[in-house]
Amino acid sequence: MLTPPPWHFSGEVIMVEYRVDPASAARFLPPGLTLGSDPGAAAAVFAEWQWCSASGEELAEPASNQFAEFLVLIGCEREGVPVARCPYAWVDQVVPLVRGWVQGMPKQFGVVHQSRATAVGRGGPRLAPGGRFHGSLSVNGRRAVEAAVTLDGRTEAKPFLHTVPLAHTLVFPDWASTGAGQPTLVASEVSDVEFSDIWKGEAELEFLDVLGDDFAELFPIATGDGYVFSYSETLRGGRIL
Amino acid sequence: MLTPPPWHFSGEVIMVEYRVDPASAARFLPPGLTLGSDPGAAAAVFAEWQWCSASGEELAEPASNQFAEFLVLIGCEREGVPVARCPYAWVDQVVPLVRGWVQGMPKQFGVVHQSRATAVGRGGPRLAPGGRFHGSLSVNGRRAVEAAVTLDGRTEAKPFLHTVPLAHTLVFPDWASTGAGQPTLVASEVSDVEFSDIWKGEAELEFLDVLGDDFAELFPIATGDGYVFSYSETLRGGRIL
Amino acid sequence: MLTPPPWHFSGEVIMVEYRVDPASAARFLPPGLTLGSDPGAAAAVFAEWQWCSASGEELAEPASNQFAEFLVLIGCEREGVPVARCPYAWVDQVVPLVRGWVQGMPKQFGVVHQSRATAVGRGGPRLAPGGRFHGSLSVNGRRAVEAAVTLDGRTEAKPFLHTVPLAHTLVFPDWASTGAGQPTLVASEVSDVEFSDIWKGEAELEFLDVLGDDFAELFPIATGDGYVFSYSETLRGGRIL
Amino acid sequence: MLTPPPWHFSGEVIMVEYRVDPASAARFLPPGLTLGSDPGAAAAVFAEWQWCSASGEELAEPASNQFAEFLVLIGCEREGVPVARCPYAWVDQVVPLVRGWVQGMPKQFGVVHQSRATAVGRGGPRLAPGGRFHGSLSVNGRRAVEAAVTLDGRTEAKPFLHTVPLAHTLVFPDWASTGAGQPTLVASEVSDVEFSDIWKGEAELEFLDVLGDDFAELFPIATGDGYVFSYSETLRGGRIL
Repeated sequence: MLTPPPWHFSGEVIMVEYRVDPASAARFLPPGLTLGSDPGAAAAVFAEWQWCSASGEELAEPASNQFAEFLVLIGCEREGVPVARCPYAWVDQVVPLVRGWVQGMPKQFGVVHQSRATAVGRGGPRLAPGGRFHGSLSVNGRRAVEAAVTLDGRTEAKPFLHTVPLAHTLVFPDWASTGAGQPTLVASEVSDVEFSDIWKGEAELEFLDVLGDDFAELFPIATGDGYVFSYSETLRGGRIL
Repeated sequence: MLTPPPWHFSGEVIMVEYRVDPASAARFLPPGLTLGSDPGAAAAVFAEWQWCSASGEELAEPASNQFAEFLVLIGCEREGVPVARCPYAWVDQVVPLVRGWVQGMPKQFGVVHQSRATAVGRGGPRLAPGGRFHGSLSVNGRRAVEAAVTLDGRTEAKPFLHTVPLAHTLVFPDWASTGAGQPTLVASEVSDVEFSDIWKGEAELEFLDVLGDDFAELFPIATGDGYVFSYSETLRGGRIL
Repeated sequence: MLTPPPWHFSGEVIMVEYRVDPASAARFLPPGLTLGSDPGAAAAVFAEWQWCSASGEELAEPASNQFAEFLVLIGCEREGVPVARCPYAWVDQVVPLVRGWVQGMPKQFGVVHQSRATAVGRGGPRLAPGGRFHGSLSVNGRRAVEAAVTLDGRTEAKPFLHTVPLAHTLVFPDWASTGAGQPTLVASEVSDVEFSDIWKGEAELEFLDVLGDDFAELFPIATGDGYVFSYSETLRGGRIL
Repeated sequence: MLTPPPWHFSGEVIMVEYRVDPASAARFLPPGLTLGSDPGAAAAVFAEWQWCSASGEELAEPASNQFAEFLVLIGCEREGVPVARCPYAWVDQVVPLVRGWVQGMPKQFGVVHQSRATAVGRGGPRLAPGGRFHGSLSVNGRRAVEAAVTLDGRTEAKPFLHTVPLAHTLVFPDWASTGAGQPTLVASEVSDVEFSDIWKGEAELEFLDVLGDDFAELFPIATGDGYVFSYSETLRGGRIL
């Protein structure tokens, strides 16, 4: 079902920085991660991805090499080094979902939609001042997250939580009491990171109360800047943190 | 369910010109349309659309203002004027499907996917020489059409069948023998047409034999050029042809 | 896209009788229909259908001859004769949606799920006292309706609004100002109606406020009995009422 | 994402026994499993499931506690005891897919449809002589498997491969070279198995060549009997075989 890495990803991202209650954020950090110097930093990230393996053969099959994702990131530190923790992620395709679990990323299934930048006409937003981009997540037929970013202009400053490694926890569900491995803190080996021009603007972010109490702990207490950009990386494997 | 026109559309298009047997093409033309000066000209068109009504309110809801479409166009003439006839179209959302029937465009439900141009990374194709774009249509769980275009370079020449009016036939299914109107040849009132840069290249096109004998009459006997471009228009209403 | 009638339908139904504000109900009745002797009578109906045309060929393709539906019925009268009006219906397949419009039934697209009676095990409800059946409607990624029926026992009394004709309004969207027909009140010609044993019980019904003000007028002011049964009919055509 | 076992399942099954080339079958058996006394025995199984955890709370949410599955079983033996191996399975929901991997069952994503027994009307088949049930699998927009069973009558003999344990292989993808466990042969702990009446009849089974060479090794060389029945079980955990 899964090809071996490396996997090349190209994505269109709508990202909103926000603040979460630091005590709540801390409850989502496993041993070995601390809140660090900016407790309560968080981000909500929508992305539409295309991907392929080393051979590139998946590029011929757009019915299966595209997916949309929404995830929440919490800013934290690993031995003094800034990283991000992803407590929740939803994707709309199964291959990236399973690939997420292999990496220690707890992806669930959701329906994710986001505006696409357009070059002509009035049917979609432009990458230009005033361009307005929307994202939404629905889970199990219930709207869970809505966001919008209205562009002001380009920025040289990359959104911080999109620049740090993600610290995941590998889990080995021990179905048959085999004594398989303990949960292990890992990061992904990533190369070929590239950002397009980064557009920044005013953001709106709403989490609706349909996903239960745990997720509700991550609701925004304040909303920060929004960003729209293209991003690519190659995922090469994992390493123990 | 439907807002009134005007409707603004912005789309990303992958288009392949091809030749169909002229006698077959003629069987799809209603009275009042003739094959004209280029009998057998046809095109296969994939598009991912975003749309909104006059108010623009649909832009806030990317879960419902986006759809993908595949359609076949046959070159023909109406009283000596070049037009195109669309004997088959498939979309993956219901609102544009119903809106199609209101216009006289016989849209059916299908699953349409196509490559998206990317600015960074190796997960998708670039709008550049060598960029390779794929499209596919599946109907009822069966793959029906596959196409690919490998870009050579930009062209000033717009693909002809994307520049002429579509001649549809308004149909009034007379469920209760009310004596409602006869089939009527109509065209759409369109404004604000805009093309982005147009990329041209070598094309591949395959129709698979899963949709029955009528559709099989439109299989390619030769494949022409391929095009990748953005396109927008505003659809304002219909007029009797 | 559509085969000609007759169309044979077999369905599994979960139905909840409820009361709507009579003044609100009246606003959904076109000229020619009156509230009649039981103003405010309404029903919420979930159904999973299988269907075929006269040839029965669709039976070989369960990927396309099944659909789920949720609809609201308002009790009313036509010239003193009890009928029902369906102001809203949602289906999860396109063919029944278009077929609905041909009949004058304003079907929209929604995601409908309902419990299925099971004969063995604990994964689903039994057709027996205590059996609990659920239904839900989501529209555009938002949960709109939830219902449940807990069975008490069998009843000989058919739920009234499932026994009367539906009075639809044929509409001819006049895209090109052809002067096509006026809205016309019609009913469907139905034969071969059959009910299975009818199970009755206590019902719960919740409409969530996600579909706008018009639909909100039809929210329950009281919830009545619930029913679970199988139902079949053959739809043969329409007639002017 | 996953609740802990036990998980209660109730399903409607359409099953076709068939013969596969024994040498091909053998290539799908891991060390520890042998073809046994009936080499080449295989089955194609369609099922529509409803499920819940110990609390039963999932029963209130039919939008997520139902799924459809298609799987292939190969008859084999573990230390002289008959078991079955499932080299391929497809489901249309993510939770059972991930739960499958936790158990060592290699579930992929597919679109599965099957006829539902009906009690009234002509829209679906009856559980009666002459009743004809269809199943289909599509993967990635391509039709992969089609089957049909025409009922002759009830049988006391359960279809053999649905009565033996499934021997899965637990796999621990070692993303970060943690040295996690080796592939391990396991079976599931199952209780509360129940069959409804079992209907038997003539079967048709076609595998289409769209899933690659490995799957093609499992194409039928002969088709046996078909069965339609309801089945339930409770899945309680796994044990090393």
